[in-house]
Amino acid sequence: MTDHVLVVGTGLLGTSVGIALSRKGFRVSLEDVSPTAVALARDLGAGTIGTDDSPDLVIVAAPPDVAGQVVADQLAAYPRAHVTDVASVKVAVADAVRRSAPDHLDRYVGSHPMAGRERSGAVAAQADLFEGRTWVICPHAATAPEATELVRRVAEAVGAVPVTMDAAEHDAAVATVSHLPQVAASLVAARLREVSEDAVALAGQGVRDVTRIAASDPMLWTQILAGNASALLPVVERLAGDVAAVRDALRRVTDDPDSEGARGVLATAIADGQLGRARIPGKHGAPPTTYATVLVVVPDRPGSLAHLFHDVGAASVSIEDIRIEHARGGPVGLVELSVLPAVLDRLRSALTAAGWSVHE
Amino acid sequence: MTDHVLVVGTGLLGTSVGIALSRKGFRVSLEDVSPTAVALARDLGAGTIGTDDSPDLVIVAAPPDVAGQVVADQLAAYPRAHVTDVASVKVAVADAVRRSAPDHLDRYVGSHPMAGRERSGAVAAQADLFEGRTWVICPHAATAPEATELVRRVAEAVGAVPVTMDAAEHDAAVATVSHLPQVAASLVAARLREVSEDAVALAGQGVRDVTRIAASDPMLWTQILAGNASALLPVVERLAGDVAAVRDALRRVTDDPDSEGARGVLATAIADGQLGRARIPGKHGAPPTTYATVLVVVPDRPGSLAHLFHDVGAASVSIEDIRIEHARGGPVGLVELSVLPAVLDRLRSALTAAGWSVHE
Repeated sequence: MTDHVLVVGTGLLGTSVGIALSRKGFRVSLEDVSPTAVALARDLGAGTIGTDDSPDLVIVAAPPDVAGQVVADQLAAYPRAHVTDVASVKVAVADAVRRSAPDHLDRYVGSHPMAGRERSGAVAAQADLFEGRTWVICPHAATAPEATELVRRVAEAVGAVPVTMDAAEHDAAVATVSHLPQVAASLVAARLREVSEDAVALAGQGVRDVTRIAASDPMLWTQILAGNASALLPVVERLAGDVAAVRDALRRVTDDPDSEGARGVLATAIADGQLGRARIPGKHGAPPTTYATVLVVVPDRPGSLAHLFHDVGAASVSIEDIRIEHARGGPVGLVELSVLPAVLDRLRSALTAAGWSVHE
Repeated sequence: MTDHVLVVGTGLLGTSVGIALSRKGFRVSLEDVSPTAVALARDLGAGTIGTDDSPDLVIVAAPPDVAGQVVADQLAAYPRAHVTDVASVKVAVADAVRRSAPDHLDRYVGSHPMAGRERSGAVAAQADLFEGRTWVICPHAATAPEATELVRRVAEAVGAVPVTMDAAEHDAAVATVSHLPQVAASLVAARLREVSEDAVALAGQGVRDVTRIAASDPMLWTQILAGNASALLPVVERLAGDVAAVRDALRRVTDDPDSEGARGVLATAIADGQLGRARIPGKHGAPPTTYATVLVVVPDRPGSLAHLFHDVGAASVSIEDIRIEHARGGPVGLVELSVLPAVLDRLRSALTAAGWSVHE
């Protein structure tokens, strides 16, 4: 039974794990190269500083570039402990461990909690950071079952959903579903530097959605992209090929606006995107669902959202998703409510009867 | 004074304009190549079918490929009317009008209401479609001031914010802030077709945001991209160059993980994206604002959002933005509320006191 967990690296992930485990009755010890960072984590309730006896599990929450070496150091420092890391890239870290601690591989299992935000540091830590999130565990051939079991238990204790996956499979997966989108968001957002303020003023919800994650931290993401370079490279190569195809189609259309072949390339690009998008799971891991949506015009003042959701609740409707669009130049917002199609009519009737300006 | 508006093309935009103008007391006549479409628009309250006398303004709401020709036809059919179109591309349409109706250019002004959604057709029409949206008006050298004034009056009548812009400036602007993001979203989403279900199951909020608009209609977007090819081409060329630079950096890192030059390319890509993202205006056209955010854990059942916003309203806090994250495998959602930093503490205190699980 895991009583004692040592967290090495008290940034966002490490501190959050510490706080969550402490609240669940685990004994959590903390280490960090920065005395300030570890003191802050302790003050936030993540655990106690340092330890004299061996932990059962060491969680290395160091940046991707150094995680492997830190894991190796911990394997050597605590011969009876199992060790995991939580970096976003798994093969590179496992390779580093293999190089530095070849005799202790059975006590190491890589993992990756799919949690976190643009913010970083202990000060941003949250006990609920992992609630409902996937925690991927990547045992390798030599991993002792006990190591995997310990990480699984920690994941469940903090409210996450453990999933086992091969390290290379993990890296390939996150290359496509996490790292490529980050690259695309950043490159699209960078184009906004080249246009006038009047042009940017035309920005609607589309570009806001596409570039939302462009606010991410360059230092961390450089480590992630570089750390996952070999899995990410083929994905970026395919993106490069597709962008080139769109570029060539646009060139052909500029010469001949009726060019059917060129238009076919563009149509296929959009259609393929539709198909890819439809594969993303719906709420709570359910199969992709087509929701019905209702647009409600909401006055922009405190209390209006409360009124809206009061009326939604009075209709006993569960909201599957919500988006707010901020209209330029007017004192209203548009709230888009996504619901299961079966309850659409009930919601529209209820809101209309309550006086809302509603439409599909 | 604009009394009589003829809407030619009763799809989403045309029907919505008709409904909105009808409610404001305008006399609206309707035309469409499809008898079914125009009858539906009439049934939805957009106006009456056909007209025997000249309208003051003709609004051509036909697809980009044919808009120019339809404008020319209308200029000839109604020698006393002014005519506008509402296509997403302005130069191509103006060029077509110039070719087909060179003697009537003074009565034509192109425009573009920045409104609409993934849905299409009269059945999706909404009277509030334009509320708070920008309606760009693109007078050319020969445009009579009266034409611009008529469109301006229509825009304001339907709740939009008219903005005047040169047609080429418009096309360049939407190429970067609307069309490139669409291309990027579709190409990133298309990659999701190549990975397993287990991989797609790792999808978090990032890829969902980036690919949201990948659900758009291929036929319409082919016309838009092709219609704006010459303005879009240089933008896509720059994207292609950046993607190639990232690809090359990843290749170098694969050979030498410590390659500083390669890491520098990656860091710059993310950092430039941060800078570009920061140029997007905040709510209601205000300068870009850094909001403070609060994450609230919300039980997934009807009424919980109502409770949350009741407590938000009780604290007299105005919500600037909201996002819901659906946690995989758990019966809770995470609601991210964005507020002005000045009210953050008040909101957190109020929600915490009300029993919510809250953090920054």
